[in-house]
Amino acid sequence: MTATRKKRQWSAGFQGEFGAFSQEAAEKLLGPEVNAVPFPSFSAVFDALQARKIDLAVIPMENTLHGSVHENYDHLLRYGCRVFAETTIRINHNLMAPPGVTLKKIRRVLSHPVALNQCLDFFRANPQLEKVPCYDTAGSARLVMSEPPSDAAAIASLRAAEIYGATILKRSLEDDRENYTRFFLLGLEDAQVPKDLDPKALERKKDVTWKTSIVFSVENAPGSLFRCMSAFALRDLSLTKVESRPLRGKPFDYLFYLDFLGKVGETRVENALRHLAELTDMTKVFGSYPRGDR
Amino acid sequence: MTATRKKRQWSAGFQGEFGAFSQEAAEKLLGPEVNAVPFPSFSAVFDALQARKIDLAVIPMENTLHGSVHENYDHLLRYGCRVFAETTIRINHNLMAPPGVTLKKIRRVLSHPVALNQCLDFFRANPQLEKVPCYDTAGSARLVMSEPPSDAAAIASLRAAEIYGATILKRSLEDDRENYTRFFLLGLEDAQVPKDLDPKALERKKDVTWKTSIVFSVENAPGSLFRCMSAFALRDLSLTKVESRPLRGKPFDYLFYLDFLGKVGETRVENALRHLAELTDMTKVFGSYPRGDR
Repeated sequence: MTATRKKRQWSAGFQGEFGAFSQEAAEKLLGPEVNAVPFPSFSAVFDALQARKIDLAVIPMENTLHGSVHENYDHLLRYGCRVFAETTIRINHNLMAPPGVTLKKIRRVLSHPVALNQCLDFFRANPQLEKVPCYDTAGSARLVMSEPPSDAAAIASLRAAEIYGATILKRSLEDDRENYTRFFLLGLEDAQVPKDLDPKALERKKDVTWKTSIVFSVENAPGSLFRCMSAFALRDLSLTKVESRPLRGKPFDYLFYLDFLGKVGETRVENALRHLAELTDMTKVFGSYPRGDR
Repeated sequence: MTATRKKRQWSAGFQGEFGAFSQEAAEKLLGPEVNAVPFPSFSAVFDALQARKIDLAVIPMENTLHGSVHENYDHLLRYGCRVFAETTIRINHNLMAPPGVTLKKIRRVLSHPVALNQCLDFFRANPQLEKVPCYDTAGSARLVMSEPPSDAAAIASLRAAEIYGATILKRSLEDDRENYTRFFLLGLEDAQVPKDLDPKALERKKDVTWKTSIVFSVENAPGSLFRCMSAFALRDLSLTKVESRPLRGKPFDYLFYLDFLGKVGETRVENALRHLAELTDMTKVFGSYPRGDR
């Protein structure tokens, strides 16, 4: 055999435009050769995954400033897909404009309102700049570059500058550097994934720290959550995320999101999940996956 | 004495423009006569509170779709203010335009991108409409009303329509009706509050269900969170919110937000907090307040 085997290219759906942080996460998880496919909304990404139009999806689950994206936990529960990996991306905001445009010429700055609001120190120091809300951070970079150079700049990621050919005028405008988003790599239960993320291949490796994400619902009786957590504590399973979420319309019931170190199939994890099932109305395992960088 | 005593008017700061959901929350908490004072950012509200330029502040803490607003938990911790009350507001999105403009004439719809994204079913059913991102939902109503009637409508609250004199073209455009935001009424430790929210007056009433919100930090050793929660469970204190938040830069440490039913000063609450202090690096009580409607 002299032919070299062609490396499979994975398609991964994400919400937003090219240059979004989700695309950056997709490249971090699946390599720079990933075919990142943009969708206008999260539900459109999940629809495409279910219809097998894309192999995988890369979805933000929580942000250090803005908390958990409950909408995506809802999709995860409804569409019944599986978590194959996690990664964390630092969100930083950069001022960019067409080549040749200098900071002095800028009068208007386009970006998503959330991004504009995360750069208030910069706007206070530059009162000549007008904040112009835009649909998307990456979209604001595309917009600024699609028109002839003017007095407009965009706030977006370095990846967006690269994609649209913008020049960075100023890096890291964000007020708070502790701005990180955690993403899940999702697929259908039988999804094909790259070898370094393939659960069967990973199981044979000894040095993998596994993490498992689950959701369960429980009646809000005194001590009910405590009893649920005892299922893990009594088996020395370390929790890395605990979050309650009231179920609207059912004012006494709660959903709980739990991440713990361990893998479905390990005896003590199986025991903990069996114990948990005794105590809850519903339990769903989103998946076991290698712990990402933090 | 024949003079009628003038009712004190409370000033309450909020983030956003007149007609924001935070203003609605302020009116629900403090009555329609409240002097609601708009600020461009959350930190500006907290600054004004600390400088005693406003009596109180009304701040969103969590949303059923978007999770906890960690930024505001950070402000709460940093500025050291106290929670006096909580309330929940249903977020609904309404299409509005200047009087005389009909739905048929509309081609552009202005609103905050988050609101636009929460009305995707409506936009799918009306493909002739262009979504125009705006800084603020209430601000989009103000904008549409400040210009001569055209082909533009706004998506904002009913209160915003009332304030800016817009006509409602269509109610409740949101895809998901289970969209609620929980607000805190905050003040400095020695703040004056209306009598029906005054902790001393409330203490004399028998039928008040109290809630207490705390934050604590703990090293991420196996079972550490479980031990912290045992401080409450062992004393039959019912938890209504539990949320872990990784501390960035300190990858093994966590902040925990906890709400439970009970009041600082009750023996079992004092015992639980003393027990908790043995187990944590830091504990801070945000306040005890009457449980709001759900």
